[in-house]
Amino acid sequence: MGKKVTIRDIAKMAGVSVTTVSQVLNGKGKRFSKSTRERIIKLRDQYQYVPDFHARSLIMKENINTIGVLVPNVSEPFFGTFVEGVQQVARQEKLIPLIFSANRDPKLEKQYLEQMVERSIDGLIIASARMTTEMINQALINRDIPYILFDRNYDQEGARVQTDDYHGGQLAAKHLVELGHQRCLYLGVTNITENFKQRLAGFTSVLQAHGRHFDEASDVLRADLSRRGGYQAAQAVVDSGATAVFAANDDMAIGLLRGLRELKIRVPEDISVVGYDDIALDEYVYPQLTTIHQPIFDLGIGATKILLDRIHNQHRDETVEKFPVRLIRRESTGPCHMV
Amino acid sequence: MGKKVTIRDIAKMAGVSVTTVSQVLNGKGKRFSKSTRERIIKLRDQYQYVPDFHARSLIMKENINTIGVLVPNVSEPFFGTFVEGVQQVARQEKLIPLIFSANRDPKLEKQYLEQMVERSIDGLIIASARMTTEMINQALINRDIPYILFDRNYDQEGARVQTDDYHGGQLAAKHLVELGHQRCLYLGVTNITENFKQRLAGFTSVLQAHGRHFDEASDVLRADLSRRGGYQAAQAVVDSGATAVFAANDDMAIGLLRGLRELKIRVPEDISVVGYDDIALDEYVYPQLTTIHQPIFDLGIGATKILLDRIHNQHRDETVEKFPVRLIRRESTGPCHMV
Repeated sequence: MGKKVTIRDIAKMAGVSVTTVSQVLNGKGKRFSKSTRERIIKLRDQYQYVPDFHARSLIMKENINTIGVLVPNVSEPFFGTFVEGVQQVARQEKLIPLIFSANRDPKLEKQYLEQMVERSIDGLIIASARMTTEMINQALINRDIPYILFDRNYDQEGARVQTDDYHGGQLAAKHLVELGHQRCLYLGVTNITENFKQRLAGFTSVLQAHGRHFDEASDVLRADLSRRGGYQAAQAVVDSGATAVFAANDDMAIGLLRGLRELKIRVPEDISVVGYDDIALDEYVYPQLTTIHQPIFDLGIGATKILLDRIHNQHRDETVEKFPVRLIRRESTGPCHMV
Repeated sequence: MGKKVTIRDIAKMAGVSVTTVSQVLNGKGKRFSKSTRERIIKLRDQYQYVPDFHARSLIMKENINTIGVLVPNVSEPFFGTFVEGVQQVARQEKLIPLIFSANRDPKLEKQYLEQMVERSIDGLIIASARMTTEMINQALINRDIPYILFDRNYDQEGARVQTDDYHGGQLAAKHLVELGHQRCLYLGVTNITENFKQRLAGFTSVLQAHGRHFDEASDVLRADLSRRGGYQAAQAVVDSGATAVFAANDDMAIGLLRGLRELKIRVPEDISVVGYDDIALDEYVYPQLTTIHQPIFDLGIGATKILLDRIHNQHRDETVEKFPVRLIRRESTGPCHMV
């Protein structure tokens, strides 16, 4: 466990300045003599010197690209897949992604953002439903750090990647209408954010255009945005008398499938279920889940590429890149059997 | 987007040294006059100055606790839950956990470790099956950075948290023997690591003690350690004629359930399936998965607490903390119906 050798030690031993050592070791030492360069490299190897990140970042900050990725919960399949997309670009571009998972706690989100600012992060990907542009700018203390917003951001400024939640809601309703369902429920979240509002608005518009009765007071159930939340809502779904349910996301839908099974309700014979997201799990549950596909992995790739572009080119226009959604029909939806 | 105010600017405006500003803003300025302290704090607020992490860490490194958490794949439920445990302690202890997901790529694992060293990380939690102590020490270049090993580490030195894989394998076999199964398979991984060897050894020992025929050549199938791997192994499982399968982990078991369902094999009537880990998903698949429970969340908490202790107290003894495993019986196992 040897004492850490510093750049100053190397410089002293080589009889040159700290700047010379820094430049040679960072491949920018062409203007120095061959013997100087060799002497420095030999000392580095001999003492197993590793440039200290902090020292180096003060000297040549532009060469280090570190991005912070703030997600609500990395153990949710949706965000796990998103982060995988970020990581794929990071590997190709020699980026270091630092992942922060703030558990949907706004205080913690702010605290983590501040931490990232302190660490001189080069850019940020922020997936937060609850932080407004104002809150973000406050946390960034008006530092000029490029960031990309992701998921649940509508009423905000700033560059972002987005899917069309309204259209997603429309696709779910259209599918259920075509299957002959008369009474459809929306299983939404207690703490509603803009993207969920959009899904509901699209869903409602199509149902009403086809003469279905649908109003928020009677046809929207609220639960926690989790498998457990969907599971716990099963009895209320059955009591409602609806023959079809559109869940706010796949996790809720998968929980609902479990709850309905325990109540001996058959899916899709008795009740059809549509989810949202198309997480990998959908093919492994029974019955396999019909859902609205969001290109989650591609969203991770897209967000990272836009961010990189902004870091390198100082773009400050407010790019909004839209990604398509589509219906994936599997086993959890079927024709309405009610007379 | 104002220009960043530096500690030098503050010092200049206050007419004091950089060190004075640093010490006052870090709560160590008692030896300076009240008016000096107040002047500095007023300037900080006025210019919304945030101490730069790099500068600060050079000055007072001991106050910042950042830990790196290297996992194979954060989007696997097992590691997602582990990271949640780490984060719980981090929130309580004002730690910053930086999560690195290296996708089981040894080159990337080494590269990330080196990055963490460069970033003057205070401690590391390393979940890697493939890195030996030698490889880790090489990446850490013998720096005195405390680290904790997690998952798949047996033949290694170093502090770690661990569960008893051998006992886990025994519990699975005992359960299947009690249900009357004569021919049991182990669905293992292609790239076998020590923890999987231990599970298999425990499993084999109990089967043989009860007079069951079991040898590796005929009774161990190999597949990729993923839901997809388990899914693809379904036909081979059926062809083997076994009535029970012990899968290397829950992901594989869940994939196998899907594959068997598509082949019209009933679980547990035709084939019983036991998983390993007890991920949250097990209760949401159908049939619900019988498994060997590992306290994953607690392992995350335990690893972080041991690491913190080592960071603060410079402990260098090689603590090995063992966590218990147990059988969780659900719906995927039942009595053997073969005559």
